[in-house]
Amino acid sequence: MSDPSTLTATEAARRLRAGSLSASALCEALLARIAAREGVVRAFVHLDPAQAMRAAAAADAAAAAGRAGPLQGLAFGVKDVLDTADMPSQYGSAIWAGHRPRSDAACVALARRAGAVILGKTVTTEFATRHPGPTSNPHNPGHTPGGSSSGSAAGAAAGFFHAGFGTQTAGSIIRPAAYCGAVGFKPSFGTLHRAGMKVMSESLDTVGVITGTVGDAALVMAGLTGGDYGDPEAKPGRAPRLGLCWGPTADQAAPETRAAIERVAAAAARAGAEIVPLEMPAAVTAGLAAHGAVMNGESSEALAWELDHAAALLSAGLRERMAWGRDLPRAAKEAGRLAFAAARAAFADVVAGVDAILTPSAPGEAPEGLGATGDPAFNSLWTLLHVPCVTVPVATGPLGLPLGAQIVTGFGQDRAALAWAEWVRAAT
Amino acid sequence: MSDPSTLTATEAARRLRAGSLSASALCEALLARIAAREGVVRAFVHLDPAQAMRAAAAADAAAAAGRAGPLQGLAFGVKDVLDTADMPSQYGSAIWAGHRPRSDAACVALARRAGAVILGKTVTTEFATRHPGPTSNPHNPGHTPGGSSSGSAAGAAAGFFHAGFGTQTAGSIIRPAAYCGAVGFKPSFGTLHRAGMKVMSESLDTVGVITGTVGDAALVMAGLTGGDYGDPEAKPGRAPRLGLCWGPTADQAAPETRAAIERVAAAAARAGAEIVPLEMPAAVTAGLAAHGAVMNGESSEALAWELDHAAALLSAGLRERMAWGRDLPRAAKEAGRLAFAAARAAFADVVAGVDAILTPSAPGEAPEGLGATGDPAFNSLWTLLHVPCVTVPVATGPLGLPLGAQIVTGFGQDRAALAWAEWVRAAT
Repeated sequence: MSDPSTLTATEAARRLRAGSLSASALCEALLARIAAREGVVRAFVHLDPAQAMRAAAAADAAAAAGRAGPLQGLAFGVKDVLDTADMPSQYGSAIWAGHRPRSDAACVALARRAGAVILGKTVTTEFATRHPGPTSNPHNPGHTPGGSSSGSAAGAAAGFFHAGFGTQTAGSIIRPAAYCGAVGFKPSFGTLHRAGMKVMSESLDTVGVITGTVGDAALVMAGLTGGDYGDPEAKPGRAPRLGLCWGPTADQAAPETRAAIERVAAAAARAGAEIVPLEMPAAVTAGLAAHGAVMNGESSEALAWELDHAAALLSAGLRERMAWGRDLPRAAKEAGRLAFAAARAAFADVVAGVDAILTPSAPGEAPEGLGATGDPAFNSLWTLLHVPCVTVPVATGPLGLPLGAQIVTGFGQDRAALAWAEWVRAAT
Repeated sequence: MSDPSTLTATEAARRLRAGSLSASALCEALLARIAAREGVVRAFVHLDPAQAMRAAAAADAAAAAGRAGPLQGLAFGVKDVLDTADMPSQYGSAIWAGHRPRSDAACVALARRAGAVILGKTVTTEFATRHPGPTSNPHNPGHTPGGSSSGSAAGAAAGFFHAGFGTQTAGSIIRPAAYCGAVGFKPSFGTLHRAGMKVMSESLDTVGVITGTVGDAALVMAGLTGGDYGDPEAKPGRAPRLGLCWGPTADQAAPETRAAIERVAAAAARAGAEIVPLEMPAAVTAGLAAHGAVMNGESSEALAWELDHAAALLSAGLRERMAWGRDLPRAAKEAGRLAFAAARAAFADVVAGVDAILTPSAPGEAPEGLGATGDPAFNSLWTLLHVPCVTVPVATGPLGLPLGAQIVTGFGQDRAALAWAEWVRAAT
């Protein structure tokens, strides 16, 4: 029998339902894979194999009792800015060392309700900002996996679990997923409730998932929310009208990124897509200009207690940015939020003219070194627009590391985002 | 010397700054007032007088050292859905009995940073929903103080503290403030960060304050946020154009409420205001129709862990509403959020034609009995519209209990809301 740790979530779920695979056997195989590679990848900040096996056994017992949920027996990694009642929740900060919340974050509770096995907590940068944890890129341990959802991206790419929860304030789901060659999905803002998350920016923070395939992302989102995320692997019966958008940060795309996105567009055109260039109106660009003020202004409020009681335990960089955010005039934060709202309204008109937007997921390959997690230049815009984004791996760069393409649709068009992302990936 | 517990926040702050009053003397006077009435009012779920006096002494020491903040020495009550690092935080639920968070909620940390003395935790209904706590109305202990910010409203009205933090998902700041004869201020959505709050509905929950006067609300909001909330007691130099709006729930206004609002409008007209009738467009009414689906749908996600691990400790009513919210089709929640967005856009056009809206704060006087907290019929609309609301006491009903008038302005027009609320109150 083949190694069940190599199955996609979709295939594993099929076998689990059919009874030809148990959650315990699946978990054991995943733990073996983790044992072989975790020493280098370092995706987890908390992993207790015995605890994971107990959860898998409980999933098997529930299934045997006829209480199988839509994600029964699938394995999740949980970014450590999301609370777990039975595991430490430390937010990537020494200030929260050893913290044990009483309850699960909403998305974790929904995953367990759907039958998922929570394997462990995955490494986050400090409060999901920049200061990195120890995780390395599964494609080359000398390179960053990206961040802030570092462990969920690296772990999903390394096949440690079927889905990793991530969160995005600037580019914290899409960028690490692209760097690691995984699929990242940031749903429409507000899709997954943030209760039990260490929220930084109320206007921006979005919970999402990182998986191995687009189909797996749809399966997981449907299982968590009960929503209809379609079957991205079903043929849509037509080719899309794609807006090719380099966006306000076009000059930050590395040559290999530019070439990869152009190849993707050409392949999509050969498969029948209509490719139209898309420029962002001034109101959208103005929204992006306000991103830093809103993010750091709101985050400095979120960390008010930490700043006043434990500032010495913050990284110097975060302390500096939080001081900047704290000292921003109130009016600048409010103007920033109004600029976001105007950008969303203007973008709704732009995106209405296409089925989806094709744009880079990141400036280039994952940068060398583990001291920084790369640049969210191609992510902050879509985060503040609150729209669904999917990154799919489409190429390999000159260093042999993955390059992603990002598909974006209008607010609430999450099913279409997944469908066109898979269409584009398959066409490439 | 007069009893300092009778001073408004504004006057107390002046004396504290001038050095003619100490935070310790003020706190002692407030504790004496609390000791005399708390046995009947029951505003607090946690109050440790020695702890409060230590905080006041620390405020005096900071002031003596030249580190006085804008709220130095003023006393706050904190609704117990907001975390406090040094006091239990139990969310009005046995599930969270004895819970001690590691950190303060953002708004609490900002209050302490500004020099405020956190007196204690105030009674909330169960998770800020309907099941009441023991608090009674300071005007008549046989009547509800309203909810869910029951203790903050009753305590502010009884003069136990200068400001009570409240939160509103339907009518949980404005209604109890009106029932208790206090001033309630729900700022524009997103003004006070919700980090460290037990958030229920992400689309609705708004942190605000309950105070004795409109000027005190402005003082407190400015001290917390650094924003410009103006001086509501300054004469604006002109009279407003007021939209008189009974709204989609007009038929729920008791005769005394109808009469009181009509008297307020007549008095405002005599003082020079132009009064124009204001009807809500269909898109706004449609937004209100979606309130229950979004509120209960999102809240059931927020309480996913509680529902799956401790449902027996929830009240029967909450369990039933959460089951309803959980079983709502995903599409209904998403359609509800889209209806909210459409309502906000339509309302922006309506409110642009007036300086402020005049509308009831609640259906009538505080209902008899402590088993229910009254009806948010005149509040849910403004909550989902995300706009600033102020309730001011304007009359007494047939039972001798307070009646409020509510002033509403457009999103971000918080300063104007406070200014016109005080203008209307003074004109009455």
